[in-house]
Amino acid sequence: MTLHAAKPVGGGPARRRAAPLGAIGSLLALGVVLAVWGRELFTGETGPHGGFDPIARFLLAVSVIVLVCHLVAALLRRFDQPPVVGEILGGLLLGPSVFGVLWPSGRAWLFPAEVLSTLQVTAQLGLVTFMFLLGCELRLDQVRAHRKAVWTTVAGSMGLPFVAGVAAALAAEGVIAGRFGSTTAYALFFGLAMAITALPVLARILVDLRIDDTAIGRLALTCAAVGDGAAWAALTVLLALTGISGSGSVAAVMGMAAAFVLVTALCVRPALAAVVRRCERTPAGEQLLLPVLAAGAIGFASLSQVIGLHPVIGAFLFGVVVPRDSAAVERISKQLQGFAVTILLPLFFAGVGLSTSLGLLSGVTPWLLFLGLLLVASVVKFIGAGGGAKLAGMSTVDSLRIGTLMNCRGVTELVLATIGLQYKLVNELGFTILVLIALVTTAATGPLMQLLSRRAGTPG
Amino acid sequence: MTLHAAKPVGGGPARRRAAPLGAIGSLLALGVVLAVWGRELFTGETGPHGGFDPIARFLLAVSVIVLVCHLVAALLRRFDQPPVVGEILGGLLLGPSVFGVLWPSGRAWLFPAEVLSTLQVTAQLGLVTFMFLLGCELRLDQVRAHRKAVWTTVAGSMGLPFVAGVAAALAAEGVIAGRFGSTTAYALFFGLAMAITALPVLARILVDLRIDDTAIGRLALTCAAVGDGAAWAALTVLLALTGISGSGSVAAVMGMAAAFVLVTALCVRPALAAVVRRCERTPAGEQLLLPVLAAGAIGFASLSQVIGLHPVIGAFLFGVVVPRDSAAVERISKQLQGFAVTILLPLFFAGVGLSTSLGLLSGVTPWLLFLGLLLVASVVKFIGAGGGAKLAGMSTVDSLRIGTLMNCRGVTELVLATIGLQYKLVNELGFTILVLIALVTTAATGPLMQLLSRRAGTPG
Repeated sequence: MTLHAAKPVGGGPARRRAAPLGAIGSLLALGVVLAVWGRELFTGETGPHGGFDPIARFLLAVSVIVLVCHLVAALLRRFDQPPVVGEILGGLLLGPSVFGVLWPSGRAWLFPAEVLSTLQVTAQLGLVTFMFLLGCELRLDQVRAHRKAVWTTVAGSMGLPFVAGVAAALAAEGVIAGRFGSTTAYALFFGLAMAITALPVLARILVDLRIDDTAIGRLALTCAAVGDGAAWAALTVLLALTGISGSGSVAAVMGMAAAFVLVTALCVRPALAAVVRRCERTPAGEQLLLPVLAAGAIGFASLSQVIGLHPVIGAFLFGVVVPRDSAAVERISKQLQGFAVTILLPLFFAGVGLSTSLGLLSGVTPWLLFLGLLLVASVVKFIGAGGGAKLAGMSTVDSLRIGTLMNCRGVTELVLATIGLQYKLVNELGFTILVLIALVTTAATGPLMQLLSRRAGTPG
Repeated sequence: MTLHAAKPVGGGPARRRAAPLGAIGSLLALGVVLAVWGRELFTGETGPHGGFDPIARFLLAVSVIVLVCHLVAALLRRFDQPPVVGEILGGLLLGPSVFGVLWPSGRAWLFPAEVLSTLQVTAQLGLVTFMFLLGCELRLDQVRAHRKAVWTTVAGSMGLPFVAGVAAALAAEGVIAGRFGSTTAYALFFGLAMAITALPVLARILVDLRIDDTAIGRLALTCAAVGDGAAWAALTVLLALTGISGSGSVAAVMGMAAAFVLVTALCVRPALAAVVRRCERTPAGEQLLLPVLAAGAIGFASLSQVIGLHPVIGAFLFGVVVPRDSAAVERISKQLQGFAVTILLPLFFAGVGLSTSLGLLSGVTPWLLFLGLLLVASVVKFIGAGGGAKLAGMSTVDSLRIGTLMNCRGVTELVLATIGLQYKLVNELGFTILVLIALVTTAATGPLMQLLSRRAGTPG
C-alpha cells in the first residue's frame, strides 16, 4: 500500500446522488453571501480597485490570458490549425480590437497599465526561454545531405521575399514606417519580416500532417532552420549597424556584437559542453543542469540587451551552442517547455494582441495595403521557395509543397514585429499588418497542404 | 537518418587542438573591444543605468538568483542537505546580510527597487504553482490505515508547539510583534508558525534517506500532510477572523471564506473531475489540461486574495480538489515543477533572503531570543510529535525518529513568515528569526536522522 494510492473521485452511488444537492446548496450559500457582503467586498476601503491589490490583479490577468488563449487554440485545432494560431487569436480577442470594443471598461479593469507592464516583463521570461529552445532545435546536420536543395530553396525562399519586402516597404513608407527615421533601417527590417519562416510552427504542422519524417518534411525543416539562423544574424547586424537600441556608437555595438558571438562560439560552447558532460554523470548533477541552462539563457538575453542587441538574440545564441548529443539536455528542454511555453509564452501573445488594433485598418487604404502586402508576401515566398526547390531538381508537386510550407511565418514574425514596434521601425499600423500577415500565412499552411495532398494522392 | 541525429560536440582531434587558441583569441578580441568601447557602452547615454533597461536588469537579476541558489544547493547537497536549505541560503547570501554588507553598491545596482517589485510579482507565480502542487500532494488515504497513530502524532506535533508558540510570542511581544496591533492575531500567528511541518521538504528528506516507503516514512508524511492542511485552514480562519487583509468586515470575510470553500468542494471539485476525465480522452484534450490546471490555480489564488485571504490559500485549495486518480494530472505536475519550482520558486527564496537582515540580530538580546525560540520550537516539537507516536504504541526509536522528522519546517515556514511580515503581524526581527528557525530545523533533520539510524542499526 503506497501513500499515493489512487482513490476514486466522487465516492459511491449514495454520494453521487447527494452531489447535485450539495452543489446547489453551496451556490445558494455563495449567492446569499454575495447579496449581503458583495458590495462591501468589491467596492471596499482598499482603494480605487476594491479588494484587488496589484498582485491579485496580475494573477487574475495571467489566469484569464492562459485560459482564453488555450481555449481558442483547442477550438481551432478542430479546423487543423496549429496551437499558435489560436493563441495569437486569443490575444487579439483580449486586446483593444475585440474585448476593448465590446466592453471597454471591462478591458480597462482587467488590464490596467501597471498590470500590463508587469505582464510584459514576465512575458519576456517566456519569450527568452522559447528563443533558447528554438536555438537548441537549430540542427544543421541535414545541410550537408541535401546541400544543393537546401541552398537554392533558402536563397529563393528568403532572398526573393526580402527584395520584394524592401521594395514594398519603400512604396508604403509614408503609411507604415515608424518614427525611428532611417529609411534604410526600416526597409531592411521590413524585408526581413517578409523573408522569415517560423521554424517551430512549421515543425508542428509537419508533425500534424505526419510528413515530418519524409524527405520533403526534413528539407522544409532544414531550410527553415537555416533561414531562421540567417534571419537572426541579419537582425543582429541590422540592430548593430543602425545603432537602434542606442547604447553606444555603431562601431561600439558592431565590435561588441562580433566579440560576443566569437566568445560564445569559442569559449562558452566548449565550457558548456564540459559542464553538461560533468552534470550528466550523477543524478545530483543532472538536477543542476536545468537551472544552469535556464540561468545561462536568461543571462545571455540580458547581456545581449546590454551590448545593444535584443534579448531574444542572446537567448537564441545560447541555445545554438548547447551541446546536441546529450539526452539530459533533451529532457530538460521538455521540462522547460511545460511552464515557459504553455503559460508564459501566451502572455507574450496576449501582449501582441493587446498592442494590435484592428481599428487602425478602418478605411480602404489600410485594408488594400494589408491585402497587397499579404499577397506579395505569400506569392513571392511561394514562387521563391517553390522555384528554388524546383531548380534543385525536385518534382513539381514537392516544389509546390515546399513553397506552401515555407510561407508559414508564425511566432517568429510576431517576435520580429514586436521588435520593429519597440524600436519604432514600423508604426502601429505596420505592426498590426505584420501580425495579421503572420496569422493568415500560418493559418493557411495546414489547409493548403491538405489540399495539395488530396490533389496529388498520398503525402510524402 | 533523422533530422535530430546526435552530432559529437567539438569535432575531431585537429579541432580540439585549435580550440584553446580560438578561445584565447576570442577573449583577447573581447578585451580589445571592452578597452576601446567599454566606457561608452556601460556608461552610455541611456540614462543612469548605462545600457541597462528595466527588462535587461530584471533578466540579469533572475539569472543571478537562479544560478546562486542552485549552486549553493548543489554544494550543500554534499552535506546531505535537501535543496531548499541551499536555495534559502543562496537567497540570504544575495540579501542585505551578506552581499549587501560585502558590496553595498553592487547589491543596489543588481537589485534596484523597480527590479525587486517585478521580481516579487513574478515570484508569486512560482509560489502559487508550488502551493497548488502541495495541495495536489495532500493525500489523506493513510489516515484511515493508521488512524490512532496519525491523530495522536498530529495532536502532539501541532498542539504542543502551538501552545508553546503562543506563550513564547506573548513573552516576546515587545521585541518581535508587528505593527498590526492585535495581540491575539500576533500570538495565534506565531503559535501556528511554531506548529507547522514542511510536507514537501519532509518528502524529499525521506526519499534521500530511503525511508519514504517504510511504515515510519508513511506515518511522518501523512502526519505532515494532515498538519499542513490543518495549518492552512487555521491560517484562513485567522486571516478572516482578524480581517487582516482589510477587504471588508470580519463577517464578510468569514462568510466569503466559508462560501468559497463550500463552492470549491461541492461545485468545483466534481466539475474539475469531469473536465479532467474529458481532457484525458484525447491527446488534444490532454494538451489543454496543463493550461486549465495552471489557470485554475492562478485564478483561485487571485480570487482568494480578493475575498480577503492570501493567494497561497486559494492555490492550495484548488490543488486539494484536483482529482487524484489521473495519470495525466501526475504528468502535468511534473511538467509544472520544471520551470515553476526550479526557476520561479528561487525568486521567492531570494525575496525572503532580500527581506532578511541578519544585522538585526546584533546585540545579545536578539540572539538569546532567537536561540530560545529555536530551542522551544525544536524541543517542544520533538516531545510533542515523539510523545504522540509513543502514546500511539510505536517503539522508542521510531518515536524519536518521528519527533526528529516533524521538526523540519522548510519552505512552509518561509511562506508563513512572509505572510506574517506582509500583514505586519511580526516585525523584521521576528521575520528574520522565523526564517532562521526554518533554516536550522530543516538543515538539522537529515543529519539527526542519520545519527539516529547509526545508533539504532538499519533504518525502517
